[in-house]
Amino acid sequence: PTVLFYGHYDVMPVDPIDEWKTKPFEPTIKDGKIWGRGTTDDKGQLYMHVAAVDALMKTRKTLPVNVKFVLEGEEEIGSEALDGFLKKQKKLLKCDAVVVSDTSLYADNTPTVTYGLRGLAALEGEVQGPKGDLHSGSFGGAVANPANTLAQMIAKLHDKDGKVAIPGFYKKVKPLTKSERENIKKLRHSETKLARELGVRELHGENKFAALERIWARPTLDVNGIKGGFIEEGFKTIIPAKASAKISMRLVPDQDPIEIGKLAKKHIESIAPRSVRVNVEIGHSGPPALAPLDSKPMKAASKAIAEAFGKKKTVFNREGGSIPIIAAFADQLKAPVVMMGLGLNSENLHAPNEHFSLKNFERGIVSSILFMDEMAK
Amino acid sequence: PTVLFYGHYDVMPVDPIDEWKTKPFEPTIKDGKIWGRGTTDDKGQLYMHVAAVDALMKTRKTLPVNVKFVLEGEEEIGSEALDGFLKKQKKLLKCDAVVVSDTSLYADNTPTVTYGLRGLAALEGEVQGPKGDLHSGSFGGAVANPANTLAQMIAKLHDKDGKVAIPGFYKKVKPLTKSERENIKKLRHSETKLARELGVRELHGENKFAALERIWARPTLDVNGIKGGFIEEGFKTIIPAKASAKISMRLVPDQDPIEIGKLAKKHIESIAPRSVRVNVEIGHSGPPALAPLDSKPMKAASKAIAEAFGKKKTVFNREGGSIPIIAAFADQLKAPVVMMGLGLNSENLHAPNEHFSLKNFERGIVSSILFMDEMAK
Repeated sequence: PTVLFYGHYDVMPVDPIDEWKTKPFEPTIKDGKIWGRGTTDDKGQLYMHVAAVDALMKTRKTLPVNVKFVLEGEEEIGSEALDGFLKKQKKLLKCDAVVVSDTSLYADNTPTVTYGLRGLAALEGEVQGPKGDLHSGSFGGAVANPANTLAQMIAKLHDKDGKVAIPGFYKKVKPLTKSERENIKKLRHSETKLARELGVRELHGENKFAALERIWARPTLDVNGIKGGFIEEGFKTIIPAKASAKISMRLVPDQDPIEIGKLAKKHIESIAPRSVRVNVEIGHSGPPALAPLDSKPMKAASKAIAEAFGKKKTVFNREGGSIPIIAAFADQLKAPVVMMGLGLNSENLHAPNEHFSLKNFERGIVSSILFMDEMAK
Repeated sequence: PTVLFYGHYDVMPVDPIDEWKTKPFEPTIKDGKIWGRGTTDDKGQLYMHVAAVDALMKTRKTLPVNVKFVLEGEEEIGSEALDGFLKKQKKLLKCDAVVVSDTSLYADNTPTVTYGLRGLAALEGEVQGPKGDLHSGSFGGAVANPANTLAQMIAKLHDKDGKVAIPGFYKKVKPLTKSERENIKKLRHSETKLARELGVRELHGENKFAALERIWARPTLDVNGIKGGFIEEGFKTIIPAKASAKISMRLVPDQDPIEIGKLAKKHIESIAPRSVRVNVEIGHSGPPALAPLDSKPMKAASKAIAEAFGKKKTVFNREGGSIPIIAAFADQLKAPVVMMGLGLNSENLHAPNEHFSLKNFERGIVSSILFMDEMAK
């Protein structure tokens, strides 16, 4: 049997760089963790599999399975090139399982296999008002303010129940199954604890869904960045000429990111008042993924990771993040995709001071070896 | 009689500097205009009076009236120090008229005396969500997004009629008098032309008021700057830890800027959801002003400026901008304040490529001389 390990070495921007306590591109080992951009997402995690193969070659001088590596550098911007490569190189990449460690444990010390991911559709919208910044005294009250207008338009993207208010947005959303809901209940997820960890008084989201349901199985719309007018220290009393926002939507099976991107663009353009000009550019996107739980590689992963943790049971979870290429692996290579991530959501991925637990790094190497042995049986 | 000329030499930030076609702090004469930060607001205009006095001294070797100058460097941030100085130095500054050229002509080639100004109250609000930026996949849907929340809060600051939705905001607003409304009608102000000049398809503002009424006599609330999350090129799929906005309100007689600042702060805090923390800092402020039309200096100014333009009639207008110290001059020195500005609203004040017409600069010098002569009669 052939196992294909996938990982990515590209990373998110380091911004805001001032908040880093170590140099983002000089890995620093401290407090049982390795600190730096990409340590958990995903350089550190992909290296677990390299280290596993290296360990096997050094000790056994042979590998229990055929191994292929696909390591790319465009995951964070949608894996477009790899997507084309997969379509063309099905034969070269033929395998019996795709193993991806770009996900997180459900909780520390909890062996986890991830069977679902959200997809993503990003866009950038700009509201253009007057041809230049205007004195807010000379013209305030006479002309639409692009920053106020942008705020009003963003406010209209959610309804009062916290649902995304884009027509057709929820049409293809697959509801959680009964067994998934039961599984979630069993996990006894504490929303109070999560709120405390994040430093907020209370969580917030779509009404009538638990936080874990919202993260795993409900789509979202988030402003990732917003900018307009005078943003330095002090005051400058202007009506800005323009204001813009970067928006990303996390999508769930069976939403189609291309379709959702178009629906969002159309809707945003439709709610733009005549007093401004609105331009929406659709950005990168990636489909959601949901893997069957009963495949051989899934069972092998579950057994391997439980053993590496010295535990009896593995938690099967879904994850709110996106790995755009996962759906393409499943579609093009027709091989089960196993997501066996050793990260922790608290490890600041996409944020300053990203880190990765050395203990989990080692468990990941052991899991990888045990998984290969299991697949060889 | 004593005439006190007031002006300010401080200026707004040059940002965005890329859009300047000349160096902002190196005055450049081109196309009959002088280009640079402060050319029209207010270094260039205050210099008209210096040049007038200089011309008189060089030709007549004497001045028709006593002259005092008050030139300050804090106008754009509220003239706080000068306010205190005025209170303490009433005797030193005693005069029969205060002349201020920090306003604009109603239109080019139209002698104008300004009798009303709006006031100002500025504030800065910050919405704090999670303690750091979060991965919008791992947490999207579970936690309030400060950028979305800020947008929703800003949207709530106006109602559907374009009115400011802060309780008590309009309570002390003085309506336009019948004769003011008639005066506005006579000016036959073209909203189509204004929209074209500003580069917008249509104007926008409070329902049921003409654009000129809205600028002269109605209060506003404008976002001057908004910022949150990732604002560089590209995408970073995060839930930002915080988002903030700089807001200024233009106020009209008899609104009290201190009171309005407090009302706004209280209201913004009251609409903040529990899922975020909101901090509102009140910024600088200045009162609105409205001068009687029948004082001797007002009549002298009207006559002087008409003559300098070679016209028969002077337009009396109000202006949307604010000169915080004007009300203090009127209150403390008990002298009529005459606003005889030679700028044009199209001269990019507070914006890149600020400029001032040399023709109007010369007319300003002549007006200043004729005004002094008129006052001496």
